[in-house]
Amino acid sequence: MTFKQTVFFARAAIIACAFSLLWPAQSHAAEQAGARIADFKLDNGLQLVVIPDHRAPVVTHMIWYKVGAADETAGKSGLAHFLEHLMFKGTAKNPAGRFSTVVARIGGQENAFTSQDYTGYYQRVPTEQLKTVMEFEADRMTGLVLTDAVVLPERDVILEERNQRLENNPRARLGEQMDAALFLNHPYGRPIIGWRHEMEGLTRDDALEFYKRFYGPNDAVVVIAGDIEPDAALKLAQETYGQVKPQANIQQRKRPQEPPQVSPRTLTLADPRVEQPAVQRNYLVPSFSTAKPGQSEALEVLGHVVGTGANSRFYRELVVNKRVATSAGAYYDSSAFDMGKFGLYASPGTGVTLPQLETAMDAVIAEVVEKGITAEELERAKSRMIADAIYAQDNQASMARWYGQALMTGATVEDVKLWPSRLKAVTAQQVQDAAREWLDKKRSVTGYLIKDTAPPSEQPASLQPVKVEKRS
Amino acid sequence: MTFKQTVFFARAAIIACAFSLLWPAQSHAAEQAGARIADFKLDNGLQLVVIPDHRAPVVTHMIWYKVGAADETAGKSGLAHFLEHLMFKGTAKNPAGRFSTVVARIGGQENAFTSQDYTGYYQRVPTEQLKTVMEFEADRMTGLVLTDAVVLPERDVILEERNQRLENNPRARLGEQMDAALFLNHPYGRPIIGWRHEMEGLTRDDALEFYKRFYGPNDAVVVIAGDIEPDAALKLAQETYGQVKPQANIQQRKRPQEPPQVSPRTLTLADPRVEQPAVQRNYLVPSFSTAKPGQSEALEVLGHVVGTGANSRFYRELVVNKRVATSAGAYYDSSAFDMGKFGLYASPGTGVTLPQLETAMDAVIAEVVEKGITAEELERAKSRMIADAIYAQDNQASMARWYGQALMTGATVEDVKLWPSRLKAVTAQQVQDAAREWLDKKRSVTGYLIKDTAPPSEQPASLQPVKVEKRS
Repeated sequence: MTFKQTVFFARAAIIACAFSLLWPAQSHAAEQAGARIADFKLDNGLQLVVIPDHRAPVVTHMIWYKVGAADETAGKSGLAHFLEHLMFKGTAKNPAGRFSTVVARIGGQENAFTSQDYTGYYQRVPTEQLKTVMEFEADRMTGLVLTDAVVLPERDVILEERNQRLENNPRARLGEQMDAALFLNHPYGRPIIGWRHEMEGLTRDDALEFYKRFYGPNDAVVVIAGDIEPDAALKLAQETYGQVKPQANIQQRKRPQEPPQVSPRTLTLADPRVEQPAVQRNYLVPSFSTAKPGQSEALEVLGHVVGTGANSRFYRELVVNKRVATSAGAYYDSSAFDMGKFGLYASPGTGVTLPQLETAMDAVIAEVVEKGITAEELERAKSRMIADAIYAQDNQASMARWYGQALMTGATVEDVKLWPSRLKAVTAQQVQDAAREWLDKKRSVTGYLIKDTAPPSEQPASLQPVKVEKRS
Repeated sequence: MTFKQTVFFARAAIIACAFSLLWPAQSHAAEQAGARIADFKLDNGLQLVVIPDHRAPVVTHMIWYKVGAADETAGKSGLAHFLEHLMFKGTAKNPAGRFSTVVARIGGQENAFTSQDYTGYYQRVPTEQLKTVMEFEADRMTGLVLTDAVVLPERDVILEERNQRLENNPRARLGEQMDAALFLNHPYGRPIIGWRHEMEGLTRDDALEFYKRFYGPNDAVVVIAGDIEPDAALKLAQETYGQVKPQANIQQRKRPQEPPQVSPRTLTLADPRVEQPAVQRNYLVPSFSTAKPGQSEALEVLGHVVGTGANSRFYRELVVNKRVATSAGAYYDSSAFDMGKFGLYASPGTGVTLPQLETAMDAVIAEVVEKGITAEELERAKSRMIADAIYAQDNQASMARWYGQALMTGATVEDVKLWPSRLKAVTAQQVQDAAREWLDKKRSVTGYLIKDTAPPSEQPASLQPVKVEKRS
């Protein structure tokens, strides 16, 4: 399906993370917008968030389900994302393709995405077509019809997607290996797209069983941003989603949690396509929803001070002063229903080995742990993050995504509104404390990405699946 | 329950592995014994193996269930072992304690054990008491009765067992961390005894649900070694186990398998109680039941040549010649329903760092990969392994355990009988090929065990469970 672009909000993705949970309610304009955001709950359990924005006669409509890759049964990895694809395969009322055809005909855009914690679908359409897309979404919320004739070819599509996104992308391969090593027990250690050998075995029954366990109005949040008033949106929602019965057997997300993390881990991925070697470090840290008050916000500031932009410690020290890196950065991925991640990365300059680079990175972290950050760094980080959020607010889809993502990962509308004031309250001491407590190597995996110079014939065992045939 | 000693056939345990699947049918005496081993199947699916041995008027009676820690639902780690403990808590017919009291009164011994792949119970009693223990085992096969009054205190017992076996044992802690890093997807990555935070939540309902899914005659193998003839044992089995109805909902073992292993991993465990640092390397390799014909036997020889005894490459090169190690060894753990492991280990001599020791270990492995082993090494390894098995045959319980373990991990009685002739057929070329194909670092985890010299107050984050409380 070439018209459907599937987006992963990959937990390792740096760009997606930079926007997580930023909400600019501190600015005057944004306060007004924040005040007008409406949060409803229908009788069948569906939550509706409306973000009015009348600059153009269009709306962004997103429906989010509280289910992601981390909710898959062990051995069925990739199922949440597979179901996302299969949601386009039609219902008794609307045969496969009709929904997308209608969106295209009215000049709309559509998209879908799967993360560890949620699955979402969105359309951007002229306001007068909003009810149409809501009818389609309400229909496929519980009315999906699947046959092997549509399921099996789509399985080939996701396998090819894995080829493109993962297997032909050394950095993505490194991230996959690092997640598998970082999480000793939690399903976040499995790739969202799935392990190939498990994707190959996914069936129609697997998809329908998963669908019935997790899709329903009582597990969904609809976010509408755009040229509509809350009451009008509520009326449309009641006429469409409101007609869907709650699903009795919807399961709450409850995943195996992590044991204490006690061993620093390292791994090396050699890939012949690597042009730029790299060091990546991921620490297991609290997410926004699992952190104690203030901790998550302190980690946001820490990520910014250490590794965002040309004024960051990493850039100044590793790229400019010591010239050991050609690029370097850090980020905090706060947006997760369970634990979050704090990441560091750098690519070495000419003649610099990865261990040398890692040592230099560690020295920067050690200095923050020992001496903390300056008042100027603290204020610059806060101002910058809030300003970024204000600029980004200009994008209807981003706004809808922030709210949706927050509501999917254990936060509330109120949490999103309060976030800037919580960010403002962070002290330099809290940032230093966060660095000391959470940037502990025992909670981390360090990955080296290097160019594999061995001829392909010498790599057979590593690139073959583990053999599992039985003798008898 | 102080009288019940629970044994883990831990997959990392070196001593247990050395005996795996060794069966001395090549010797004249053993051939006779082998010929007299009987293999029956009752109508309800129960398999009975009888190994006559009339030297003393006693029998070793073992019942093995095809369920282990690897069959636990994610999030319920430790459940198979917990159920093993709870199996002593009584039935409607025999209240808690009666079975053990009877065994003790007649001067018998009893034991129980849980592995990743099986759970077993055994008694060694005078032959005339065999029927009594079979009646007790048949009764608790489906008749277990559990109340919270017995379940909850027993949960404290397994938690204390974890304290003793794992948390106070740096080498066991290292092994736990290495398994978690070696297996990216397979449940062998979880500890048999369970992660503490999951053990704390195990309930009566969890145990009973697991029991009903996995315990029944159609999932069990009884092995009797000792002073009894096959027909007499069969008659007793029919009168006892034969009366138990097959369980309709017994589930076949089917575990998530591994993706290709592409990244060499390392980890470091620092523990204040370490007196002797060590390097451990585990490779993911085929088990006896997943290997191609000859591969597993070649890995047995490889393990012996590289790391068993004073003539091994590791001992000669690392301990005697280079003096970089005070001890060193290697082993192959072939006995697994899914994949096996090949392990290397060494402790450094004075003034030798762990990276230096690892480099020396790697050099030994590289030489075997490049140049293979000598004809003398090959023959010595084969002779020694067969001789060891002959000597070990003297032990009734070991014989029962070999057969039971083999039948639990996908092998047959015939496989066990044929094993020595398969071992004899191994060539030096096959051993070199096995080293080249399977001792690939991409399929491995290397663990460093070091003494933690930091004061306890500086280790808080690492020794605390990951916090999971929610804000809202």
